[in-house]
Amino acid sequence: MNSKNVASGTKMKQIPVLNDIFEAAENIAPFAHITPVFTSQIINSVCGCKVYFKCENLQKAGAFKFRGATNALLNSKGKDKPVITHSSGNHAGALAKASAMLHRRCIVVMPETSPAVKVDAVKYYGATIVFCKPTLQAREDTTNRLISETGAELVHPYNNFYVIAGQGTATIEMLSTNPEIEVVIAPVGGGGLLSGTSIAAKGIKPFVKVYGAEPAGADDAYRSFKASKIIPSENPNTIADGLLTSLCDLTFEVIKKYTDNILTVSEESIVSAMKMIWQYLKIIVEPSGAVSLAAILDNKTVFSGKNAGLILSGGNIDLSRLPF
Amino acid sequence: MNSKNVASGTKMKQIPVLNDIFEAAENIAPFAHITPVFTSQIINSVCGCKVYFKCENLQKAGAFKFRGATNALLNSKGKDKPVITHSSGNHAGALAKASAMLHRRCIVVMPETSPAVKVDAVKYYGATIVFCKPTLQAREDTTNRLISETGAELVHPYNNFYVIAGQGTATIEMLSTNPEIEVVIAPVGGGGLLSGTSIAAKGIKPFVKVYGAEPAGADDAYRSFKASKIIPSENPNTIADGLLTSLCDLTFEVIKKYTDNILTVSEESIVSAMKMIWQYLKIIVEPSGAVSLAAILDNKTVFSGKNAGLILSGGNIDLSRLPF
Repeated sequence: MNSKNVASGTKMKQIPVLNDIFEAAENIAPFAHITPVFTSQIINSVCGCKVYFKCENLQKAGAFKFRGATNALLNSKGKDKPVITHSSGNHAGALAKASAMLHRRCIVVMPETSPAVKVDAVKYYGATIVFCKPTLQAREDTTNRLISETGAELVHPYNNFYVIAGQGTATIEMLSTNPEIEVVIAPVGGGGLLSGTSIAAKGIKPFVKVYGAEPAGADDAYRSFKASKIIPSENPNTIADGLLTSLCDLTFEVIKKYTDNILTVSEESIVSAMKMIWQYLKIIVEPSGAVSLAAILDNKTVFSGKNAGLILSGGNIDLSRLPF
Repeated sequence: MNSKNVASGTKMKQIPVLNDIFEAAENIAPFAHITPVFTSQIINSVCGCKVYFKCENLQKAGAFKFRGATNALLNSKGKDKPVITHSSGNHAGALAKASAMLHRRCIVVMPETSPAVKVDAVKYYGATIVFCKPTLQAREDTTNRLISETGAELVHPYNNFYVIAGQGTATIEMLSTNPEIEVVIAPVGGGGLLSGTSIAAKGIKPFVKVYGAEPAGADDAYRSFKASKIIPSENPNTIADGLLTSLCDLTFEVIKKYTDNILTVSEESIVSAMKMIWQYLKIIVEPSGAVSLAAILDNKTVFSGKNAGLILSGGNIDLSRLPF
């Protein structure tokens, strides 16, 4: 099915199909990096399988989020109005950078407790920052007020057709450069990356297994997947600060349909995986980005002897607060 | 001049020419990575020039040293004898890994005080490690004893024709992917990298300026360059532990002839440069590898508005002992 001809309003409630991801890839090509795929013999021997790392930490603004944000902006109708989002994380930086490249005004609502390093990045890219109290209610209220005041268009970090399609483009690249991959693993927070990854992988190679990797301390996607209904995150507690959010309608529908399983991982394995990636691949990955490798470390028999493609989702981290 | 037809014994006393570096590039192509060149808008705006980072930290064994070691092995005559070196640094890991790939026995003499992370790497690549007291005398004595006992062939980390030619291949790659580069900067310790870099850059584009970057706390190359004679390093003191060695005959001859200048940098700038690379490029570079960027930070007017290509020489660092 190709959803290409469906009107924009309706489309936002749909889930993308493979063609939409190919279209996103074409759209974002002039703006995003084609990121490299790295391997390490030492990591392979520790894991007992061959691991391919799709380095989205080396994507613009330091995360895969730049893909979805750029695709959403390119498909937006009201180009004279600003875009807006509320986020303290990678989506904020990505939307700010994509807006700067596409000459679009951008407003980011950030909790006043956001780390300086993230505020600085959004500021550097030229977005307007509006601070609010550090509660979801305050973030939503502030965002809604600004939308009614400015007519800004909301770009949700994952409950958005074009964002999901954009995130899937990393997997298209990875499976085209490394067609030997037979298992794909992506971290899951709100599910935008895992949704796009699942649609892309199953669309290109239906026999490829797709796994979500989630911290045990923020296992709402795991529980939702098992219960076949959305169970929101409650008091999540993990070092993987990009994975604290809960699934939404769109992403849950995709994951239910296309994802083979969700694996939870311990905090210790996240830190070990992160350290292995820093040490042997010589690249910076944030804790959320290391969760896919942690899933292998915690489930070696599942992946034994396989060619496993992992999305290293991001590399934005405060270097003065490392867990090792 | 092409030194191709000179017999091996004589050749070792010669300095390579551009053709030797092209030959090295062809030799090592099946074994070494063609490393990526990264850029960062934020770093450009801090530096006031456009900086191209040739990522030799992403080379096999985590440093440019793999290029020279591989080229030396491929040109070695006695393939049934082991190779040997004494080193506690990146040359040891590089020679061990290259030997493993080329099925050559390898002996590494290491001071008994070598960091565990470096010993582990050499061990992982399958080399035989012989420990000695942590003095240059003990290293040389042990190496000489093993050479007479085993007939092993010494592969010096920089006083070697083929090693210098191999190190120059990084610059050939960088100038071919980024021909807009008009200044090249490489760190200088024993001078193998700077020699190869200088021959390659001046050979391909005589108008390109080539600078060596050296810690002020280990400035023997700077002093030798100014005095036009080799002044060995005495009690060097710097965080850049790969740059403690002194120039040798071969490398000094090249540097005198082809390098435009040597710039010394402060320890503070080395740490700042390293942190900028980690934060904005999302890659791990060791202090020695960050010295080229430190040279720009400490000499902004020299590089203002230029396109500067930097060799990020290596990424091997103990993650539990970071300077920030």
